[in-house]
Amino acid sequence: MNYYIPFFLSLLILFTTVIAHEKLDSQPLPRPLILEYPEKIELGSKQVNEELQFKCSSWRIAGEANNLSPWKTIPLECADYVKNYMVGRAYIVDLEMVAKEAGDYAKGVQLSGDGKDVWVFDVDETLLSNLPYYADHGYGLEIFDHSQFDKWVEKAMAPAIDSSLKLYEELLGLGFKVFLLTGRRESHRDITIENLRNAGFRDWDKLILRALEDQGKTATIYKSEKRSEMAGDGYRIWGNSGDQWSDLLGMAIANRSFKLPNPMYYIA
Amino acid sequence: MNYYIPFFLSLLILFTTVIAHEKLDSQPLPRPLILEYPEKIELGSKQVNEELQFKCSSWRIAGEANNLSPWKTIPLECADYVKNYMVGRAYIVDLEMVAKEAGDYAKGVQLSGDGKDVWVFDVDETLLSNLPYYADHGYGLEIFDHSQFDKWVEKAMAPAIDSSLKLYEELLGLGFKVFLLTGRRESHRDITIENLRNAGFRDWDKLILRALEDQGKTATIYKSEKRSEMAGDGYRIWGNSGDQWSDLLGMAIANRSFKLPNPMYYIA
Repeated sequence: MNYYIPFFLSLLILFTTVIAHEKLDSQPLPRPLILEYPEKIELGSKQVNEELQFKCSSWRIAGEANNLSPWKTIPLECADYVKNYMVGRAYIVDLEMVAKEAGDYAKGVQLSGDGKDVWVFDVDETLLSNLPYYADHGYGLEIFDHSQFDKWVEKAMAPAIDSSLKLYEELLGLGFKVFLLTGRRESHRDITIENLRNAGFRDWDKLILRALEDQGKTATIYKSEKRSEMAGDGYRIWGNSGDQWSDLLGMAIANRSFKLPNPMYYIA
Repeated sequence: MNYYIPFFLSLLILFTTVIAHEKLDSQPLPRPLILEYPEKIELGSKQVNEELQFKCSSWRIAGEANNLSPWKTIPLECADYVKNYMVGRAYIVDLEMVAKEAGDYAKGVQLSGDGKDVWVFDVDETLLSNLPYYADHGYGLEIFDHSQFDKWVEKAMAPAIDSSLKLYEELLGLGFKVFLLTGRRESHRDITIENLRNAGFRDWDKLILRALEDQGKTATIYKSEKRSEMAGDGYRIWGNSGDQWSDLLGMAIANRSFKLPNPMYYIA
């Protein structure tokens, strides 16, 4: 019988090792109950977080679909969401999707060869990215500060939006004339040209900035008037790319308009 | 010395049990290496999956922003994405966001009291949901089948989109006249009325369906003509809710248009 003693001893040693291991893992018993507790708390905040993600996503998409009333700042509760979107992969993939759709459409346009086939581009958040500026200003959480933004513009350091630069060059290659139509003021012409060139943009046919008489107008009116002048001069506006609906709507609307994503600010 | 034999025997029995258990789990040894292998595959497919989520999300948002060329079926690789969107929380939250924006805007409209203040609603995927039908047809993965869809329409079983019904009642309460403008044919008038009533819709002022002479027209043209008639009759179209851009664009555009989400089909 006495050789059973070492057998049970060995079992005891083994089970002690198992229990010691449990303690090393800081897992008090009973295990299943304790494991449920933190999971439930995590699930709770995860659900709150998930609902907020849905809400902020809905808000962003409502903006892209032009469903929102004019707004001055992004919703406070969406600050992290907008930041994550802007610095993450989603913004880039969204930009690439819009550029690809525009490029595919452009390839199918029958150009006349009379030099009257035009593509209109907005500048800020369409060709040039002011993300370095907005990164310092809460990604749209702060109310827009004209004088602060002017200082940034005057540095001429805004980088190109890569997918827009690629589309831009593709359009020139296809034979489109490119007109740049920006809400920037005429006094910023030279610095804007410098910035566009620094960022790799070349060979635009017109760069239209707000003259003194355009200062009080909404972007929709100012840009509609400028597009109407183009149409009056016999230009065919095949495409228009802009990050604001006020770049695209109003009079003399392009044959196809392309809305680039921008959840950081709204211009009427 | 001989009492060590049962000790080693006991260890042998225990390890045999452990090994047998491993086999039950179908976990060949060495364990850590084997565990690493599926983890790496999972990470790889997770990244592929994440990129696909970004792509399909971009595609969906491009549709909501009217950036896409006409399309006949959803992208094959986005089949799961679209299904998950439609049956999940995101679609509901997106619908609620659009209804809320519409309602907030409507509350601010100064009604004249002359009975000429109008809100236009599309029917399918705007007031009524055909999700039960599309669930049986790949959520847009199958090419649209008119005769199959007609059979579904004739059941008059499409449920209300809850957030649209709430908005609808809110608008009636505010004093708007409600005009329903649908691409459904005149021959479906009675069944459409039955379905709308079953779903809780009441007190619309006009239900406009496609007459014989409207059959060949695009939705954009047909609906623009009908809105132009309304405008000609002195109605002020304050709002227009639809899940297709062809519900909203063209002539006699409403003062504010509200694009409800719909990644399942496209109507020109």
